[in-house]
Amino acid sequence: MSVEIICVGTELLLGDILNSNAQFLAGELAQLGIPHYYQSVVGDNIQRLKQVIQIAISRASILIFTGGLGPTPDDLTTEAIADFFETPLEEKPELIQEIADKFAQIGRVMTDNNRKQALVPKGAEILPNPSGTAPGMIWQPREGITLLTFPGVPSEMKLMWQQTAIPFLKSQGWGKEIIYSRMMRFRGIGESALAEKVAHLFEGTNPTVAPYAGLGEVRLRVSAKASSSQEAIALIEPISQQIQAIAGDDYYGADEDTLALVVGQQLRTAKQTLSVAESCTGGGLGAMLTEVPGSSDYFLGGIIAYDNRVKMALLGVSEQDLNQFGAVSEPVAKQMAHGVKEKLGTDWGIGITGIAGPGGATETKPLGLVYIGLAAPSGEIHCFEYHLGARRDRAAIRYISACNALDQLRRQLLRKI
Amino acid sequence: MSVEIICVGTELLLGDILNSNAQFLAGELAQLGIPHYYQSVVGDNIQRLKQVIQIAISRASILIFTGGLGPTPDDLTTEAIADFFETPLEEKPELIQEIADKFAQIGRVMTDNNRKQALVPKGAEILPNPSGTAPGMIWQPREGITLLTFPGVPSEMKLMWQQTAIPFLKSQGWGKEIIYSRMMRFRGIGESALAEKVAHLFEGTNPTVAPYAGLGEVRLRVSAKASSSQEAIALIEPISQQIQAIAGDDYYGADEDTLALVVGQQLRTAKQTLSVAESCTGGGLGAMLTEVPGSSDYFLGGIIAYDNRVKMALLGVSEQDLNQFGAVSEPVAKQMAHGVKEKLGTDWGIGITGIAGPGGATETKPLGLVYIGLAAPSGEIHCFEYHLGARRDRAAIRYISACNALDQLRRQLLRKI
Repeated sequence: MSVEIICVGTELLLGDILNSNAQFLAGELAQLGIPHYYQSVVGDNIQRLKQVIQIAISRASILIFTGGLGPTPDDLTTEAIADFFETPLEEKPELIQEIADKFAQIGRVMTDNNRKQALVPKGAEILPNPSGTAPGMIWQPREGITLLTFPGVPSEMKLMWQQTAIPFLKSQGWGKEIIYSRMMRFRGIGESALAEKVAHLFEGTNPTVAPYAGLGEVRLRVSAKASSSQEAIALIEPISQQIQAIAGDDYYGADEDTLALVVGQQLRTAKQTLSVAESCTGGGLGAMLTEVPGSSDYFLGGIIAYDNRVKMALLGVSEQDLNQFGAVSEPVAKQMAHGVKEKLGTDWGIGITGIAGPGGATETKPLGLVYIGLAAPSGEIHCFEYHLGARRDRAAIRYISACNALDQLRRQLLRKI
Repeated sequence: MSVEIICVGTELLLGDILNSNAQFLAGELAQLGIPHYYQSVVGDNIQRLKQVIQIAISRASILIFTGGLGPTPDDLTTEAIADFFETPLEEKPELIQEIADKFAQIGRVMTDNNRKQALVPKGAEILPNPSGTAPGMIWQPREGITLLTFPGVPSEMKLMWQQTAIPFLKSQGWGKEIIYSRMMRFRGIGESALAEKVAHLFEGTNPTVAPYAGLGEVRLRVSAKASSSQEAIALIEPISQQIQAIAGDDYYGADEDTLALVVGQQLRTAKQTLSVAESCTGGGLGAMLTEVPGSSDYFLGGIIAYDNRVKMALLGVSEQDLNQFGAVSEPVAKQMAHGVKEKLGTDWGIGITGIAGPGGATETKPLGLVYIGLAAPSGEIHCFEYHLGARRDRAAIRYISACNALDQLRRQLLRKI
């Protein structure tokens, strides 16, 4: 009894897209403790699809398909499946209506080729697609063989997986022994340095502890095998406590926690507000903060001071300092932080200025030089200098700059609260 | 005559890593014009590896393996291959020395388990690994079957591919005919609607035309087989022209073009400047604009007016209108666009206000309702209303809102230039 993942799409064979669906599904299966020994990728071609199905049913009992469910002529997954199991396709009228409604919602008219998405093999059940038009299906074409199909769009596939596939698989008795993981997140410490500090924990077998390097952050995955998530958490918790004690302030959160979320919780607790002044990040810090629903409780807004005129006019940065020290300098970062705090009347103000590249670097100001100003409620203004390195690209430098700004605010708030 | 990619590694089956090797190799094969119809992923298990080889040689003549070449006991690719073709492994003394030298270079001593990496099936040629210890091999175990093995570490695999695999494949006559593609990008039209308009082109065989759906955009991939990229472009160009004529303003660019890049080129050409006022996108539009190096030529900055107080104080949005029409309304979007244009003294001003959710929706103002104000150099202020749908999540609504704002500016600039 095992699962085979079958990803359908010529774009995968052409290297146009990364097969992130396979990774997501593989991880989910592992968590549910469902054995999974093979993955196949095949193009939008009925004969080859049928051949892959032939092989898959000889070595797995659950086949999970992604891709090829859309309205266009090269979406052939459902057709190939029906054809392989010699079962006619039937149109689900309720689906036609649902698809039409979805088009109406976004102010578009359903075109005829979309009817195709309402066809499923006779006897198959629909897997509703809450966020897209192409539904999936679940079908037992013969004893001991179950097929699940999902669209290729990752966000749609994931939502359907969580809402419909997991309950089904659990109803089939899977997930009795689960693997439950907590991803612990750290900033301000390198992977090898953290690994050395917690080396003794890598020996453990249940839970296991494994390090992962992320962009400007380090993660430790603590995984436990147990019969319930409660039981797993009971195994994970003491290890997690140990690690937090070892890492101190460098630990900022776990799993879905983001710096923006953690800082937001701190600000809400402290009943304090924040505004940002961004140069090299160009709005990325504000975007990060406002990814968090309800961030309007503590984030009032900011000023994107990409041009020096905006730094002067809206943030009161001194023209003389701009000329003397340059836009990427400690005095300017501090004045940006102070200026936005005053202008928007918030408790905290952050200013970011740096050289994200590819151009703009000089002898004295290398690519990746970033200054982060942090104006505190007390009136004191901190400044942090970063050298994010010449090997990082523009996107990475901008992203890490915004994260570092949040991390510095997080550390300040830790001391305050 | 085709290739099958076989990625070996239990970590792929556990979802620990993304299979970026498969995407890289697929893209390389496409460029060389080598047909590639299947990819397989299998764990570090000899029996299953042999089964995958059995299937692969029945449908492909070149098998490309990645992963499982290292020194640890779970690295079994070479062993499984030798076993399947019933050929003894032999140790290459020169490799032992090479591997020992590499350890010496990084100040380490070669451990015994590394000898394993010097074993290849009798008759196989070595593919040197310049950046790591595990070499690969090229082997023709029987007439019409060629195997290439590469380590799983992407950087090592890519270097070996470029330095040794490509020359080999070209020596075998491949790469005379390449596949060259152009990804055409569209906004403001749905996948199915565009597909219907260009349906007649889907019949073509060289170039081929295939549709892809993206988040808030649609793409058409035009691929041509030819003996050179110049020749391929000559085949693609007329089709591309036809499609552009059919799609009109809904076509915005190709390949690496982004809306921010295209709008930036338009603004530079028009010698005009832009500023943005963001509420629901919280800085995301500014971040998108400044992803483009050199955007400071036309993008001066903006105001993140997340809180109504900021809308009033910095953008001059009327308190009465905020109370009467609400923050998510046409008058407010227009005043935001006008306000930021005035405040920053730019030619164009964009204002975005909307309900990104999950909270904030009302009877009259559904989730996904977004107003985009666009203040033009002429002084006229346009406003666009979007219903991005209750099924999209916060991130998608924010992303599409920023893209739509750029798209509306793009359309205005098309008319002006």
